[in-house]
Amino acid sequence: MFDLVIIGGGPAGLTAGIYAQRARLKTVLLEKQMVGGQIAVSDVIENYPGFPSISGAGLMEKFEEHARGLGLEIRFTDVMNITVENEVKVIKTSDGEIRTKAVIIATGAKPKRLGVPGEKELTGKGVSYCATCDGPFFRNLKVMVVGGGDTAVKEAVYLSRLAAKVYIVHRRDKFRAEKMHQEKMEATANIEMITSHVLKEIKSENNLVKSVVLQDIKSCEMREIETEGVFIFVGINPTTDLADVDKTDGGFIKTAPDMSTSVPGIFAAGDCRNTPLLQVATAVGDGAIAAGSAIEYVEEFEARVKKV
Amino acid sequence: MFDLVIIGGGPAGLTAGIYAQRARLKTVLLEKQMVGGQIAVSDVIENYPGFPSISGAGLMEKFEEHARGLGLEIRFTDVMNITVENEVKVIKTSDGEIRTKAVIIATGAKPKRLGVPGEKELTGKGVSYCATCDGPFFRNLKVMVVGGGDTAVKEAVYLSRLAAKVYIVHRRDKFRAEKMHQEKMEATANIEMITSHVLKEIKSENNLVKSVVLQDIKSCEMREIETEGVFIFVGINPTTDLADVDKTDGGFIKTAPDMSTSVPGIFAAGDCRNTPLLQVATAVGDGAIAAGSAIEYVEEFEARVKKV
Repeated sequence: MFDLVIIGGGPAGLTAGIYAQRARLKTVLLEKQMVGGQIAVSDVIENYPGFPSISGAGLMEKFEEHARGLGLEIRFTDVMNITVENEVKVIKTSDGEIRTKAVIIATGAKPKRLGVPGEKELTGKGVSYCATCDGPFFRNLKVMVVGGGDTAVKEAVYLSRLAAKVYIVHRRDKFRAEKMHQEKMEATANIEMITSHVLKEIKSENNLVKSVVLQDIKSCEMREIETEGVFIFVGINPTTDLADVDKTDGGFIKTAPDMSTSVPGIFAAGDCRNTPLLQVATAVGDGAIAAGSAIEYVEEFEARVKKV
Repeated sequence: MFDLVIIGGGPAGLTAGIYAQRARLKTVLLEKQMVGGQIAVSDVIENYPGFPSISGAGLMEKFEEHARGLGLEIRFTDVMNITVENEVKVIKTSDGEIRTKAVIIATGAKPKRLGVPGEKELTGKGVSYCATCDGPFFRNLKVMVVGGGDTAVKEAVYLSRLAAKVYIVHRRDKFRAEKMHQEKMEATANIEMITSHVLKEIKSENNLVKSVVLQDIKSCEMREIETEGVFIFVGINPTTDLADVDKTDGGFIKTAPDMSTSVPGIFAAGDCRNTPLLQVATAVGDGAIAAGSAIEYVEEFEARVKKV
């Protein structure tokens, strides 16, 4: 039986692995596909302290080397679900069952895509799903925000501090963000609101975003607007189906400050939990805290099982 | 008037500075003494993801370069206190007053010292105040834990997984840790409890800890015990007198998950808040979240002031 199984090989999971190995827990990290998570597909990261500018893949290679250097075992397998039998966690994977005292879920989250031509190919080349991450690359340029909820409106205001001009496109005729955010957006001179329009296509030149094609949903008329950036905020899907723990309406795992969930011995870290900010820096903090709590849980495990 | 003043130049403050500069807030970081905080005096850090092994000073130099490279202004000055006038925060420093919309307190915390001969000189050379940070350097060696509270007992159990032998010395005749932690300690074969003793001196050889001198507080008899490490857990003092915000009994600033405090526009990050783990990794996460919340606060500031 393992002391700890970490599910997910992004920044949160790898950090938890570093801490668990240093505490000599018998640990394995399970990754579905590729170590690094969402951030590994980012062209440039400039806000993880210590690395002024590095590619997402390059940073995650360093995290992986760090964790493997401490002896962390990484297995590539799909996790189906987690069940609990007398405090023992049973993890069903595509390669059989794994039994463990504690689990850290660090499975991340994925932004929803629009599914329009140009979107996939131009991601990281002008198309972004994170204003905090990529906004500073668009200083004094034009950007377009897609979406009408809280995140879209807040990020449009955030981007207005950096970009020369911000368009915000929403398919409905009214935004559905908090009133205060909306008022702030309306009062910002360099934000232009385009309602009742949908984005149909993202066009490029030299493999960088050059313009977008919008369609008026009432008249069906098409128009093309030049822009260097497209920020898409139409929702985010956490990968949390595998565990039966308390979640928010959006599916994010509810955590206490020590990263514990509603099930004793199951912890969550990073983008899959109800974090206020989805960043490498915060995932790293979460991973360290979750590992610290898991270490304590494992130390008390035997006493706990005896009582059950 | 500044948008944001960050108080403290450790990992939490510098990270907040990186995020604030990227969002183009008009920001200044105030530091009393030396950029880097507590961690800058650590000989080796091996658990900040991305850097398998680096000196505390070396890592903090990288953080500082990162923040300064983005244009962060750092001023060396002492902060006396923070007051609030119509939502404007007024910071009294040794060089005059600074007015700002938002504040992030990242002033850190300091472990209490025993004040015995050898302690100061041998800090980082066998004397430590953090088991998570330094425990792994004592694999298969003997260590001594000093203290009788929750932290001392928990860390003794943690260290027992790494070290060959753990002594725990407490000046009273009974430990005052949670019963569960105490039972776990008593059941651990390689922990030896020495009660009613105080540590009088730490001796060295070749500038590394070699032994400690204990005194029986009843008989006043002295004894010397060989040990390679001394972990001191007799309390921790957060530097939080400067602000009148809600605090724990221990003086740590109470924060919500978004790092806000009981006073709107004043945020806290890192070791000075009620964090579950005092680490560079967690301070970095805190700093990013606090900056994100401060950015949002600043954006809403004008609307807020109008209402007051």
